[in-house]
Amino acid sequence: MTPEPARFCLGCWQNLHMPVPLRGPLAAPFRLFGVKPSRMNPNTCTICEMAFTKIMKARAVTIDASVMFADLRGYTALTQTIDQDRLTELLDLFYDECAAAIWRYDGLLNKTLGDAVLAIFNFPVRQADHTAQALLAARQIQERFQARHDAVLKAMDLEGAELGIGIGIDCGKTNFGEFGRSHRDLTVIGTVVNRAARAQAGEILVTDAVRERTAAMIADDKGRDYALKGFERPVTLFAA
Amino acid sequence: MTPEPARFCLGCWQNLHMPVPLRGPLAAPFRLFGVKPSRMNPNTCTICEMAFTKIMKARAVTIDASVMFADLRGYTALTQTIDQDRLTELLDLFYDECAAAIWRYDGLLNKTLGDAVLAIFNFPVRQADHTAQALLAARQIQERFQARHDAVLKAMDLEGAELGIGIGIDCGKTNFGEFGRSHRDLTVIGTVVNRAARAQAGEILVTDAVRERTAAMIADDKGRDYALKGFERPVTLFAA
Repeated sequence: MTPEPARFCLGCWQNLHMPVPLRGPLAAPFRLFGVKPSRMNPNTCTICEMAFTKIMKARAVTIDASVMFADLRGYTALTQTIDQDRLTELLDLFYDECAAAIWRYDGLLNKTLGDAVLAIFNFPVRQADHTAQALLAARQIQERFQARHDAVLKAMDLEGAELGIGIGIDCGKTNFGEFGRSHRDLTVIGTVVNRAARAQAGEILVTDAVRERTAAMIADDKGRDYALKGFERPVTLFAA
Repeated sequence: MTPEPARFCLGCWQNLHMPVPLRGPLAAPFRLFGVKPSRMNPNTCTICEMAFTKIMKARAVTIDASVMFADLRGYTALTQTIDQDRLTELLDLFYDECAAAIWRYDGLLNKTLGDAVLAIFNFPVRQADHTAQALLAARQIQERFQARHDAVLKAMDLEGAELGIGIGIDCGKTNFGEFGRSHRDLTVIGTVVNRAARAQAGEILVTDAVRERTAAMIADDKGRDYALKGFERPVTLFAA
């Protein structure tokens, strides 16, 4: 199911036409200089992540990307009722299932904050069909979590509880790069990010832009209007 | 105003009684092994951040800490109206002012996500009065931002706009450590974090726990009940 980890950094190969070994004996000298698999995507290296500004010759660039947010429903309420050990276990599981699915489709697990996971598709690994990849990753997150749902709740002594994941996806022009001069941080910003972050009412909800690029994969052709915080007008979202 | 940057890592000194040079010629051999000032707090080093699990001999520990969230009001609406360059500039400014204030009071700028900044006080630099430090940092963020507010709006051609920062602080037992096994990530979780994240309706709002530890610094002794998302009962917050 899960493909073999890449032996060379996919990002450096695509963007710089440079083979940077990630694993095996060839990788050893690179490790000495701090080059290793990225925590955000183990098939790319820390050069892609840290030397972004140098490679791109700009602090931020506008790129076409797909952005996915996933969060654990009822997380805030859960933190008040279960003990820290079980909370840690639950977050471990959630992050790990998200990471596996995101990496499977060459996405970048850019950030986690509490129960929120932010993934970007189309950087550093370029994909012509990055929106479809984001959607496949979202579906795999739901599948992976569902498959372990009952066993996890049983192991955690939470058999009454109902755990679910909300996922939102949008795509389009985003601003990707390093923000903040003293606390530098590689991330993505823009309306696409905010829309994805707010679109988590259903299992997987996507914007019209996502649907246009992945129409054959999505049955819902009507959509529903949602009032999203920070957006003046209702945003039409499609169940995917 | 801003104190000199520390020459030795404050975290390693306090937790391990080990002097780890951060700057100057003594730091050079450490750099070779990837030990450098942390992006989360330049007065501590990457050992504090990366080798947490080894030092603590656990993946996560329960610590008493103060947690502060700051966010830029109206950010989502702004991303829809201003261009990417000005948005980048605004986020740079916001992150930098937050970082300066947080580091001034020995806090850890743990994460940024969009317009949200998460800071932790009492790790890796231990402080008996960490709650007071968090409050002072919050006030300094507001002061710094206010001082530059008009000039920034003018430079960005946004003179009609009204920019403000919302800050929430809570304190108490939190779970601090690395979560996720494949995507390892140092952060803090628990109800204290969620409460701080939701408490951003005013300029600076703090919980009862914060007020108890910093009563002499806070004029508001009545507070107001707020319905916070994910919390069954209203939470009393005090303007600080």
